[in-house]
Amino acid sequence: MELIRNKIINDPVHGFISVPGGLIYNLVEHPFFQRLRYIKQLGLTEFVYPGATHSRFQHSLGALHLMGLAIQTLRQKSIDISFEEEEAALAAILLHDIGHGPFSHALEHIFINGVGHEEISLLIMRILNEGYNGHLDLAIDMFLGNYSRQFFHDLISSQIDMDRLDYLVRDSFYSGVIEGSVGSGRIIKMLNVFDNRLVVDIKGIYSIENFLIARRLMYWQVYMHKTVVSAERLVISIISRVRDLIREGVDIPATPVVKYFMENNFGPDDVTEVTPLSKKIAERFLSLDDNEMLSSVRMWKEHSDIVLSDLSRRVIERDLLAIELNNDPFDKKRIDQLSILAKDLLGSDYGATDYYLFTGTVSNRAYAPSAPSVKIIDKEGNLRKFTEVSELFDHRSLSQKITKYFLCYPKGIRSD
Amino acid sequence: MELIRNKIINDPVHGFISVPGGLIYNLVEHPFFQRLRYIKQLGLTEFVYPGATHSRFQHSLGALHLMGLAIQTLRQKSIDISFEEEEAALAAILLHDIGHGPFSHALEHIFINGVGHEEISLLIMRILNEGYNGHLDLAIDMFLGNYSRQFFHDLISSQIDMDRLDYLVRDSFYSGVIEGSVGSGRIIKMLNVFDNRLVVDIKGIYSIENFLIARRLMYWQVYMHKTVVSAERLVISIISRVRDLIREGVDIPATPVVKYFMENNFGPDDVTEVTPLSKKIAERFLSLDDNEMLSSVRMWKEHSDIVLSDLSRRVIERDLLAIELNNDPFDKKRIDQLSILAKDLLGSDYGATDYYLFTGTVSNRAYAPSAPSVKIIDKEGNLRKFTEVSELFDHRSLSQKITKYFLCYPKGIRSD
Amino acid sequence: MELIRNKIINDPVHGFISVPGGLIYNLVEHPFFQRLRYIKQLGLTEFVYPGATHSRFQHSLGALHLMGLAIQTLRQKSIDISFEEEEAALAAILLHDIGHGPFSHALEHIFINGVGHEEISLLIMRILNEGYNGHLDLAIDMFLGNYSRQFFHDLISSQIDMDRLDYLVRDSFYSGVIEGSVGSGRIIKMLNVFDNRLVVDIKGIYSIENFLIARRLMYWQVYMHKTVVSAERLVISIISRVRDLIREGVDIPATPVVKYFMENNFGPDDVTEVTPLSKKIAERFLSLDDNEMLSSVRMWKEHSDIVLSDLSRRVIERDLLAIELNNDPFDKKRIDQLSILAKDLLGSDYGATDYYLFTGTVSNRAYAPSAPSVKIIDKEGNLRKFTEVSELFDHRSLSQKITKYFLCYPKGIRSD
Amino acid sequence: MELIRNKIINDPVHGFISVPGGLIYNLVEHPFFQRLRYIKQLGLTEFVYPGATHSRFQHSLGALHLMGLAIQTLRQKSIDISFEEEEAALAAILLHDIGHGPFSHALEHIFINGVGHEEISLLIMRILNEGYNGHLDLAIDMFLGNYSRQFFHDLISSQIDMDRLDYLVRDSFYSGVIEGSVGSGRIIKMLNVFDNRLVVDIKGIYSIENFLIARRLMYWQVYMHKTVVSAERLVISIISRVRDLIREGVDIPATPVVKYFMENNFGPDDVTEVTPLSKKIAERFLSLDDNEMLSSVRMWKEHSDIVLSDLSRRVIERDLLAIELNNDPFDKKRIDQLSILAKDLLGSDYGATDYYLFTGTVSNRAYAPSAPSVKIIDKEGNLRKFTEVSELFDHRSLSQKITKYFLCYPKGIRSD
Repeated sequence: MELIRNKIINDPVHGFISVPGGLIYNLVEHPFFQRLRYIKQLGLTEFVYPGATHSRFQHSLGALHLMGLAIQTLRQKSIDISFEEEEAALAAILLHDIGHGPFSHALEHIFINGVGHEEISLLIMRILNEGYNGHLDLAIDMFLGNYSRQFFHDLISSQIDMDRLDYLVRDSFYSGVIEGSVGSGRIIKMLNVFDNRLVVDIKGIYSIENFLIARRLMYWQVYMHKTVVSAERLVISIISRVRDLIREGVDIPATPVVKYFMENNFGPDDVTEVTPLSKKIAERFLSLDDNEMLSSVRMWKEHSDIVLSDLSRRVIERDLLAIELNNDPFDKKRIDQLSILAKDLLGSDYGATDYYLFTGTVSNRAYAPSAPSVKIIDKEGNLRKFTEVSELFDHRSLSQKITKYFLCYPKGIRSD
Repeated sequence: MELIRNKIINDPVHGFISVPGGLIYNLVEHPFFQRLRYIKQLGLTEFVYPGATHSRFQHSLGALHLMGLAIQTLRQKSIDISFEEEEAALAAILLHDIGHGPFSHALEHIFINGVGHEEISLLIMRILNEGYNGHLDLAIDMFLGNYSRQFFHDLISSQIDMDRLDYLVRDSFYSGVIEGSVGSGRIIKMLNVFDNRLVVDIKGIYSIENFLIARRLMYWQVYMHKTVVSAERLVISIISRVRDLIREGVDIPATPVVKYFMENNFGPDDVTEVTPLSKKIAERFLSLDDNEMLSSVRMWKEHSDIVLSDLSRRVIERDLLAIELNNDPFDKKRIDQLSILAKDLLGSDYGATDYYLFTGTVSNRAYAPSAPSVKIIDKEGNLRKFTEVSELFDHRSLSQKITKYFLCYPKGIRSD
Repeated sequence: MELIRNKIINDPVHGFISVPGGLIYNLVEHPFFQRLRYIKQLGLTEFVYPGATHSRFQHSLGALHLMGLAIQTLRQKSIDISFEEEEAALAAILLHDIGHGPFSHALEHIFINGVGHEEISLLIMRILNEGYNGHLDLAIDMFLGNYSRQFFHDLISSQIDMDRLDYLVRDSFYSGVIEGSVGSGRIIKMLNVFDNRLVVDIKGIYSIENFLIARRLMYWQVYMHKTVVSAERLVISIISRVRDLIREGVDIPATPVVKYFMENNFGPDDVTEVTPLSKKIAERFLSLDDNEMLSSVRMWKEHSDIVLSDLSRRVIERDLLAIELNNDPFDKKRIDQLSILAKDLLGSDYGATDYYLFTGTVSNRAYAPSAPSVKIIDKEGNLRKFTEVSELFDHRSLSQKITKYFLCYPKGIRSD
Repeated sequence: MELIRNKIINDPVHGFISVPGGLIYNLVEHPFFQRLRYIKQLGLTEFVYPGATHSRFQHSLGALHLMGLAIQTLRQKSIDISFEEEEAALAAILLHDIGHGPFSHALEHIFINGVGHEEISLLIMRILNEGYNGHLDLAIDMFLGNYSRQFFHDLISSQIDMDRLDYLVRDSFYSGVIEGSVGSGRIIKMLNVFDNRLVVDIKGIYSIENFLIARRLMYWQVYMHKTVVSAERLVISIISRVRDLIREGVDIPATPVVKYFMENNFGPDDVTEVTPLSKKIAERFLSLDDNEMLSSVRMWKEHSDIVLSDLSRRVIERDLLAIELNNDPFDKKRIDQLSILAKDLLGSDYGATDYYLFTGTVSNRAYAPSAPSVKIIDKEGNLRKFTEVSELFDHRSLSQKITKYFLCYPKGIRSD
């Protein structure tokens, strides 16, 4: 085998990240991957945490680094992992976020209706795979959970995958919410394989508990911070307005690639398989990033439609809508009342109150799926469920989906 | 008022700590306080976490620093705090640990039977107070909870006092168990006063949850790590043996101050009030530290009693007893069996199997007292219990006392 | 005086930053200041250090924070500072970078020919000052060095100003080049005032030495890293090509604000005074940021001019030109030879070899100006030059300007 | 070969340290090595930097860790290193400090007259080697520089050895003097071998410059901080007094092992070779640590000799002598004057003014030896001296030995 020349990349979170030569280095250099430099990991969260400007690019490299450590740990525990499996696992984790679009999760299903970043990641991996003559076959199988040794899939996508172990540490580091940090290094040292699944040695139980709580803290304190929700919903309002105006035949300038996605309404069927159309969509999608979106919003700020221009100005100048978060749905009366006030405030020109006044829900499901839970190996070598072993979380309080209701409206009409 | 010259002390945890001039500076310079340099915060924990060599001295300065921040925060929230109150609160937190003896918690009730460090701290504060002509009256009242504005007591001693906010961060920092860190700064910013009690603004709820979990993690991963428990019990065995031998009339050399406490058996009645005797005991106690203890153990290592010398050698060389931790009591049969094996191993000279083979319990009560729980102020300004507000901890899973059983025996007879 | 409500902002570098209410809070919320969110502190440096995605916005808040600490330190040393002076100093440091454009230093003199960010900052401050009815007069005087108490100017702009004390720590933190970190906290504690100038107490001498060396390390390892220089020069090449094409009458699409600056060639005379024209230029400039620039480059990537499209593609895909750094000028012969090779490689279409093959110099002047050096107060209270006191730097080795020559060319023709 | 079971140790500085099984793990468990837990890395420095309580034990493990990284880096650069060489290099760095006694450098030549810790380390390694049947032969050769591949010696002892790369980072971390930190990781990545010597790739030049400056800062700000010097000299005064009294026939109690060294005056001849005497001395020396010393000082505090008791009290209570540091020798007149004042203050009982009033020098020689300097490999693969390549340090300003004069005297007679 040819000598592998490592490229070393500096990372404030993990120190030095070594990128193996060959396929992996090649993928890192690929324009599809370089694009992730222009997509912030936390989208508009920097409106609340100005330090959180880190990109999906760094996060993906960080996850790559952790995958390397995990494989090293498993090999030390006598789990046999071939060179091909190692490379495939590294490729899969490197590419796991390649389908993210502008503002990450916030606009996830908006550019291509109802399609999440994972489906787009898969499409892009398949397109890449054509260029690499099938060299990504195993990586894609691992990503999809189709490979017989399921623990590779678990390392890529599960409750304690390398994705989460990187993003929790990284988001905590960059936001400055230090108590959201988790002991990724320690958790990785505790990983093991049992019946082809990824498991955790029992002495890692407190680290896992802490990990779950840290994730929860980050969830409500950072990812779903109400000001962040308000900002994200404002952008969604803008896109609705743009599409409504386009439907009415109004000309809406934008950067070319944003224009393409505003004028087309692609859906799941358009991107499931590798087809000439899906390739074209993917190609355009791979030109879409935070810059394109913000430049377009800036253009819309100058548009003659005063709803569009006002909403856009609000994003650019960070003049957000007021927001309230509640455990229960908001009272219909209250919303009606606010609606009247909003109409007064916005005047007849702002007929479209809907763009300014809306309610909805956020929930932590995305972060605590009911899906396969963490498995623990106890001292006797038996497999046990985390919730069985943990003295703290025996009531499934953690896995429970928490939903909160939000209500947004212009600040001028805040009654309290 | 005279100009206050601050002394600045470098601290790896908090950066710079400013010590106010006057009384506080004076207390820091006092030999009673300087002694804390020689008492490690975590006693024998460095047997497992070699980085954890930090002293009670630094911790007390750290708690002083956080008290300063807390007072600043409360003043910004328009809580009126006088100069005298500030100084008293600072003095009380500075002195809260002054009654700690060698190896901190491990030997807490051993040198003076059944007396905890808090009672001794109180005695020493009272003795100091005589020297300061009553200038510590208010500090002592706050420490005891006798001052009308109870929130000062809460800052010194409660679920979220400045003691804990420092030690969790510090112990995590020095042990390298980074995931045990808590957001002390953020929690302090969330503090408030309601009905004269210390409360937390509701948006601090996730930080409090995280704090409780981090404490729990530190509890089992660091403070009650089984190797630490084994080391501590070994030292307790040594002291039992020393006292037993003294009772039998055997001469046991030791450093003078250790000898004093080995030969006397003081109890609660001797130290409750400031009396000539309690003053004498306190004076000696204030010469007792980790060095004295370790030097004495080294002398005992050379003693002709082979039980004492072997146990002492084990501490010095870190050749500890095997230990098992269990959720249930150990089987009597197993213990009897081990007892036979131990007798075989130790031979007739080691008649005293009791010093080598013992069981007992550890629990997290010290860290999660049933005492007054954290109070939260909600958005409407109502006082609520933390467990009511937290979606996670409504089942009181946290406040529940967890007891584990340990079993120690010489490594040679481990059956598995 | 009305009660000041502080806004607290989380910062991974300094912890919590308190923004005083009133003028300062108002400036932070101002769209002119919010724009700095979209200008990366280190421009294209993230091509080498992916972590370095931090913005001028955070840096300016960080410098604000340090100014607050410096003022607190000076007051503790009995330097009288009025509320007005404090607010003005805070405003001046907050706004010191407000005139930065896209990609920070790299394109500094390009958008408005020969005009640096400081002149533009001044123009914008003056425009703001009109809106604030002269409330920024004192801040502007301090910024310009026109205020009698010169030490305020020194805090804003000198060898050891709050700008540098923040950016060195911040750039080191985000790039992961930890050894570039400086002891900002310690240096600030050592600040003093003598004869109305900012000075450093002599016991800070080693911190200053370390600061100068750290800056030097950051200079060559980060700011002038050869790959960063290569990327920056590529962007300058692109802009030259765009302007050349516009001059030839070719239509060059771009986002509106980039188009405005590409089609106009403003110079120093246009922006020196507050005039209707300079106000218009400033207004447009305040819509210019990294996003606009990158979106425009992406449009240019699709342009029919193959030089422009290739150069643009190279930036977007990070397919940079090869670069060499040398202490001496490059040999003319070598350049000629490369020129022939480049023509071969680029073919007839790429006639414009100049955009691909060029040489130039970088120097550390910007970071080590010959300007007023650090002043030290010795133990006897005498003012001394830093270079007199330092045992290390008596040969002025540090103040010496170091120039390096660079040579850029397409990677395909690298001979070695 | 038997499977190597790694022990993982938590370290706040490096994260996780893996200790290879077999010889190395055995050495770590050895009582000789465990003793280093009780010797603080920085002795009395904690009198100034309370956080600096870290031990030689951790430092030695840290250096072991870095040696592992260095070997990994060199292997990646195709330097062939055998398993035996790896183990020997690890053993040598692990044991390099094993000959340190109480208070580290301060009392280095005092317990055994004129013998440094390196000679004692060598003696102990040789004694260990007997027990390991010559298994440490290669490690000892490397330590002494007798092994043909000199770069191993350079990794153990040179300007940029693993010892320094650990202690600078660690001392900076624990003291909180963060600007003293160096980029150990980056420097190690830059290491290479040329002509059997350790060299640094030229792109590491700024890291080396920074390393040298950081060391210098630590030297004057921490290691030679004047209060630290004062404390150390006080301890030396105490030992002089003890030995003087013993010589006069006065009985001086102490812990047994301290007594042994106070009553004997061993010198270089007694410990050069492995002999029955040197083995006995070593055995006792290996029971000597900070605890023994401090417990003895505490006993001396109660001694009837008032000079001894007062000096001892001063250490225990941190009531140090005043100290001045100067670039030039102190004026004889001034010393005479102080001498008269001291006699007045101390009274007739304190006849022995010499223990309270003394002058001497400190220099940074120990930290910047003239010995072999750092070698650099330039881009053309040529070997060059660091001072030739560095634009900053061409005047040998760094290698120059700096000597400072100190003067200690009781605080009561300070004239200023």
